[in-house]
Amino acid sequence: MSTEKSFAKGSAAPGPVPKDQIRIYSMRFCPFAQRTRLVLHAKGIKHDTVNINLKDKPDWFLEKNPLGLVPTLETPAGEIIYESPITCDYLEEVYPEKKLLPSSPFAKAQQKMMLEHFSKVTPYYYKITAGRRNGDDVSGLEAELKEKFAKLNEDLLKKKTKFFGGDSVTMIDYMMWPFFERMEILEMKNPLEDAPELKKWVERMLEDPAVKATMHSGDTYRAFYKTIADGKPDYDYGL
Amino acid sequence: MSTEKSFAKGSAAPGPVPKDQIRIYSMRFCPFAQRTRLVLHAKGIKHDTVNINLKDKPDWFLEKNPLGLVPTLETPAGEIIYESPITCDYLEEVYPEKKLLPSSPFAKAQQKMMLEHFSKVTPYYYKITAGRRNGDDVSGLEAELKEKFAKLNEDLLKKKTKFFGGDSVTMIDYMMWPFFERMEILEMKNPLEDAPELKKWVERMLEDPAVKATMHSGDTYRAFYKTIADGKPDYDYGL
Repeated sequence: MSTEKSFAKGSAAPGPVPKDQIRIYSMRFCPFAQRTRLVLHAKGIKHDTVNINLKDKPDWFLEKNPLGLVPTLETPAGEIIYESPITCDYLEEVYPEKKLLPSSPFAKAQQKMMLEHFSKVTPYYYKITAGRRNGDDVSGLEAELKEKFAKLNEDLLKKKTKFFGGDSVTMIDYMMWPFFERMEILEMKNPLEDAPELKKWVERMLEDPAVKATMHSGDTYRAFYKTIADGKPDYDYGL
Repeated sequence: MSTEKSFAKGSAAPGPVPKDQIRIYSMRFCPFAQRTRLVLHAKGIKHDTVNINLKDKPDWFLEKNPLGLVPTLETPAGEIIYESPITCDYLEEVYPEKKLLPSSPFAKAQQKMMLEHFSKVTPYYYKITAGRRNGDDVSGLEAELKEKFAKLNEDLLKKKTKFFGGDSVTMIDYMMWPFFERMEILEMKNPLEDAPELKKWVERMLEDPAVKATMHSGDTYRAFYKTIADGKPDYDYGL
């Protein structure tokens, strides 16, 4: 199973998950699925990838996960796990090699609180792109998002660390990263102009091997999101 | 520190958290804070409780947690933890006595997925009570909520267990319970009529010692929520 092309309704179901690995149901450009892909890569977990056509989901996929969400993990035993933070915590527990979460319960709680804060950032990606598409004035939304970035910048300044969980990449960085990789789709002028530390974090993340293994270029995202805007999402764009 | 009355703006800050215990900032009727209180009781954790007047929060509380949320935990070292599932996971990790989460990573992931589903139930409590207050027709919302209860009922039927995580009370039961305890505020006729297994679960939960230690009566909730409806929340109602 290394086909990258997405499976749509009517497609034949992939075979069972091989004994020694795990499967991720994904969509190549989905930021939430990328969280899980980052963790799979960072931990060197043997996995196969089944990409799903999210507009026209196969029945066999909906049987596995009636919510039809990506990312979804499937184990050789047929266990199904979804919701990106849950899939990542699961991988962290089952594959203890290269721990991505700190061992202290408080430091772990801090990562979860950061993720909770960050969950207020992600909706802006949808609001701003949809607003722009409708010809709305999105300058207020842009200003709000910049404020959130400035707050993240302040966090890094206070911590005095290279990454959000310390001086090396940890889980929280991977949870946030997919939204920075897709920043160009916001079509904002200098979204990080008030956030120089955050800008440095972005540059450091770009050097991370898991980021390199899972990322797409700004051009690719712009082209893919154009197919979404046109109502004809091309999940296989670039293949 | 065993005063139950709430602290408002202008109040003197409570002393430091004693060395051998943990503090919860709470509000006596808050369902989210009750989750943490249930876990504190179930695990027999020595704690003190500082109730907060949520309409008029003390500055010293906002300094500890600028979001001003309850529940918030504070350790003797001054560590601050908030968001109810995060506080509960933290307590589970730090106090391994009487484990409330299963040890298998998949079973743990299942509890988190159940909680994620349940997070779609909780908003109905606000929508239905607010709608009723405004004189709106809430029958559509009531029907939707009943459907969610029927779905939970189905889960229990499929599992064939007494509680949501097995035949004894586990974390997921405590995460869901506070909303069942407050069901009367919905003023619905037979909200569980299509959910006989769930009704049995409610009866079983009422026997749980932590539930008994933290619960209020339906009359108390109705009276408290009336003070909210009147715009004058009485956080000290009944004291």
